Amino acid sequence: MSETASGNPVLVEVIRGALVESRHSGAIAVADAGGRLLLALGDLERPIYPRSAIKAMQALPLIESGAADAFALNEDELAVACASHSGDSVHVEAVRGLLAKAGLDESYLACGAHWPISEDATRELLRTAQRPRAIHNNCSGKHAGMLATAVHLGLDPKGYERPDHQVQIMIAGIISETCGIALDRSRMGIDGCSVPTFALPLAALAKGFARLGSGEELPSERASAARRLCHACFSEPAHVAGEGRFDTIVLRALAPSCITKGGAEGVHCAALPDLGLGIALKIDDGAKRGAELAMSEVIAALQPEAKHGLAGQLNAEMLNWRGIVVGRVAPSEALQRATNELANQIVR
Amino acid sequence: MSETASGNPVLVEVIRGALVESRHSGAIAVADAGGRLLLALGDLERPIYPRSAIKAMQALPLIESGAADAFALNEDELAVACASHSGDSVHVEAVRGLLAKAGLDESYLACGAHWPISEDATRELLRTAQRPRAIHNNCSGKHAGMLATAVHLGLDPKGYERPDHQVQIMIAGIISETCGIALDRSRMGIDGCSVPTFALPLAALAKGFARLGSGEELPSERASAARRLCHACFSEPAHVAGEGRFDTIVLRALAPSCITKGGAEGVHCAALPDLGLGIALKIDDGAKRGAELAMSEVIAALQPEAKHGLAGQLNAEMLNWRGIVVGRVAPSEALQRATNELANQIVR
Repeated sequence: MSETASGNPVLVEVIRGALVESRHSGAIAVADAGGRLLLALGDLERPIYPRSAIKAMQALPLIESGAADAFALNEDELAVACASHSGDSVHVEAVRGLLAKAGLDESYLACGAHWPISEDATRELLRTAQRPRAIHNNCSGKHAGMLATAVHLGLDPKGYERPDHQVQIMIAGIISETCGIALDRSRMGIDGCSVPTFALPLAALAKGFARLGSGEELPSERASAARRLCHACFSEPAHVAGEGRFDTIVLRALAPSCITKGGAEGVHCAALPDLGLGIALKIDDGAKRGAELAMSEVIAALQPEAKHGLAGQLNAEMLNWRGIVVGRVAPSEALQRATNELANQIVR
Repeated sequence: MSETASGNPVLVEVIRGALVESRHSGAIAVADAGGRLLLALGDLERPIYPRSAIKAMQALPLIESGAADAFALNEDELAVACASHSGDSVHVEAVRGLLAKAGLDESYLACGAHWPISEDATRELLRTAQRPRAIHNNCSGKHAGMLATAVHLGLDPKGYERPDHQVQIMIAGIISETCGIALDRSRMGIDGCSVPTFALPLAALAKGFARLGSGEELPSERASAARRLCHACFSEPAHVAGEGRFDTIVLRALAPSCITKGGAEGVHCAALPDLGLGIALKIDDGAKRGAELAMSEVIAALQPEAKHGLAGQLNAEMLNWRGIVVGRVAPSEALQRATNELANQIVR
């Protein structure tokens, strides 16, 4: 079971005073729809669990099955089906609406409950003396999409989250085809929200995201479904995550040229439709601060015009409890070198 | 500024299904009061910011100055002066009591405010529509101790947190003498709570903790002050951290044979007075889950009888939102090998 150190380079440094206090190593792939790598840092073949980063892939059956049309889902609902949402009322309403259109309610959700990511939403629950429910779980939109797909296909919605349910089998097929890789059941884990998660190499994920964003190398129905999901996310950035959160900030700043999606344990992916590229990265230790800084750097290299919109993410100062600047989160030399080379490739 | 990968070994693995999902590298030192190393994993000479792990050292002037006696501080108050507390009412009351005995109130605290670490305490504030104050900051006990020291010595309490204040100068001297190392001002950063933090090698920290726990190699007044602080922590485990938190759990299970203290960015230290040993470790990426698992493994190697009391920490299952076991946090082969060798040394 145990493995030696991954050998991945340090990508991100956490600096306090004059010292590097902590460091995050990891791997990053930037690929086109054919799988050609424009940036290859670290081990891109070792399978990693993409977690929530591939929610849009998990939402494709919602469209491809005809469920989205049959239930007349709007863009809020499509966006929340792709989301790791903050549990605000806008999210809860969109999830409730999606379920209702499929003739279901929140009692069908099998994701488990957790306090909303949003502090405001948590405060509101407390003010009204409520405990969080499954619908507040950041994955509830994804689950609602899976349930709606099951209902539309005339399948038993119960057990929709299990690996042997037809909806999960469809999703596994889509991930496999989109990323161009056979899924290995020995690499299947259980996600935080109880659905299966399949480990994939970063190179394959980056290729998959290039395809999702541009439609290249996808059957036309899938390309169309992907385009529709992306359009929903571009139209409803707050539904994909929430206020103050990375993916919402990026969507607001860069749509429709860039869509990002983070996952637990330091995974982050992105599609850049105009460039026909996909990005997939994983921070070895799982740290979100490492993943978000690295993703910001790669996007800025690919789209220099993004530097303004991502200024807060690129110049990640660390403030202490009194608001004093005590340090910063910064790219390592290895990451800087790699993104400089990447930027040069794009310019040419 | 940028440095290459530390070269430290992977110590802890986060396993989901059959795969290592994430990994934490770092360094660990176990030393006696003379500095002899019984365990040396990774780079023990690179200076690291110990952060909250050395709060007991920062509290020594409170006793050595005579303030603790002059103000008749009780054990709750001494323990909270060494604490990264959860911000529960027991902690807030102890801090308020300490300040009051010195003729001060919470308005003197310069640590800044943050929501209590304790979820219950946070929810109570939210339920009563309150914002957190400086006294809820996990460092407020440490700051109260510094303030009381200043008052007792007839110093201006304002600015007590600044590097040039006499109390901070005293603390720096104590850290330097206890760990047997010159403090380099170029290695001074600002802590989250605004006091100075001096970067030290793990080897020196481990030696310092061996000394604090056993009194060996310390002047008798310091040994006595350290003993008194340890006794307060052994008597009031909940005041040192809080319910459900690692340092409180360890104190409850193992006092008086072991006292641990964690710090931000994956630092954890411990003193084992009966064995005359100290432990100091840092996880490269700053992850607490890595630090706590590694610390548990080292303690269990040094004190096999601890395995029962630390069972929850050693067998760190990961549950998802529905309480399904999805993985575990486990020691790497390198850590297992090192702790096995350590255990053999102790047996002999």
